[in-house]
Amino acid sequence: MTERVEDFFEVRRHAERGSYQRSVIDAILDEAFFCTVGFVDEGRPVVIPTIHVRVGDTVVLHGSPASRMLRTLKAGAPCAISVTIFDGLVLARSVFNHSMNYRSVVLLDCKGREITDRDEKWEAMRLLTQKLVPGRWEDARQPNEKEIKATTLVSLPIDSASAKIRKGPPVDEEEDYELPVWAGVVPYRLRSGSPDPDPRLPRTIELPRYLR
Amino acid sequence: MTERVEDFFEVRRHAERGSYQRSVIDAILDEAFFCTVGFVDEGRPVVIPTIHVRVGDTVVLHGSPASRMLRTLKAGAPCAISVTIFDGLVLARSVFNHSMNYRSVVLLDCKGREITDRDEKWEAMRLLTQKLVPGRWEDARQPNEKEIKATTLVSLPIDSASAKIRKGPPVDEEEDYELPVWAGVVPYRLRSGSPDPDPRLPRTIELPRYLR
Repeated sequence: MTERVEDFFEVRRHAERGSYQRSVIDAILDEAFFCTVGFVDEGRPVVIPTIHVRVGDTVVLHGSPASRMLRTLKAGAPCAISVTIFDGLVLARSVFNHSMNYRSVVLLDCKGREITDRDEKWEAMRLLTQKLVPGRWEDARQPNEKEIKATTLVSLPIDSASAKIRKGPPVDEEEDYELPVWAGVVPYRLRSGSPDPDPRLPRTIELPRYLR
Repeated sequence: MTERVEDFFEVRRHAERGSYQRSVIDAILDEAFFCTVGFVDEGRPVVIPTIHVRVGDTVVLHGSPASRMLRTLKAGAPCAISVTIFDGLVLARSVFNHSMNYRSVVLLDCKGREITDRDEKWEAMRLLTQKLVPGRWEDARQPNEKEIKATTLVSLPIDSASAKIRKGPPVDEEEDYELPVWAGVVPYRLRSGSPDPDPRLPRTIELPRYLR
């Protein structure tokens, strides 16, 4: 990694919110269900949301072999990945100091490698399924050889990565603390609701333990 | 808009999930708290999450005049914007047909314009504040002239835009419907929790009605 690249991926705005610790970065990547991938297509920037899974020191994306994004990435085009978890609205006394609490990760200068080995594909599919719903892999019908072939997987190294986190109460101008305005944080969280059975599911099939 | 551009922003994968209706696009932009902006910096793709607000036929981003993203965008560099609302995990009988329910919008080939008019800046700040917390603008201390000057706002036309929506139950291979595997959707929703007052807030200041 050259100095220039480090400079390129450094958190510049609100540098105090930045972190380059892999444990911090990994926790955010593992909690988020989806990421947004940026790449350049014929000179133009493109952004696409997609599901991801972290596999060791890499982020793995998957999809149809026909996907423009995956075809671009496996050809080695540089890409960037962003993951954001929204934690709350930060209400300061002044409009100007309103903010949001969040945890985000940005990976820059990623170069993809297609996963072609059958067992490596299998393992990435297993980890992705287990990430989304722990316990699901052993319950659902696992991929057959045709389905494995019909899935393109691209691995991207977690290399030029940074996390950015804002948490805690608002920060107001000192003179504004005297204003009679409510200030604080409205926390937000992504919550799951009651599982909704497929209309074609026989009534004899009960909700599995891992979904209760 | 040339034919080539339309071709460029068309939803290709799962075209049946695509929509180009402004009412559909606007509803997703208005519900989402943040977007991810993609642009090209020295030939390399960059992605940055940021808060947005829709103002009529435009999406407005804001931040510090020192922001690399805003400086790039106001200079007229093409950018792309992605907004994603995660609605649920779709559990099919086969791992291969697992999916997610979501509503997303992608804007491609955006060219920014800096908002320099004082009143136009004011109105965009008001709409942003009201979007995040309706009622907040009239309660908090509104921006002074120094703060207005210290805020850079960039307006991007909603032009080459598409929405992509997946909803409803899983779709399995016909022969898999006989498998004794639970299938359906685990819905997810971003929910707000109890407002958490700033530690420096006097106890005499009650929670405003618009936050109850």
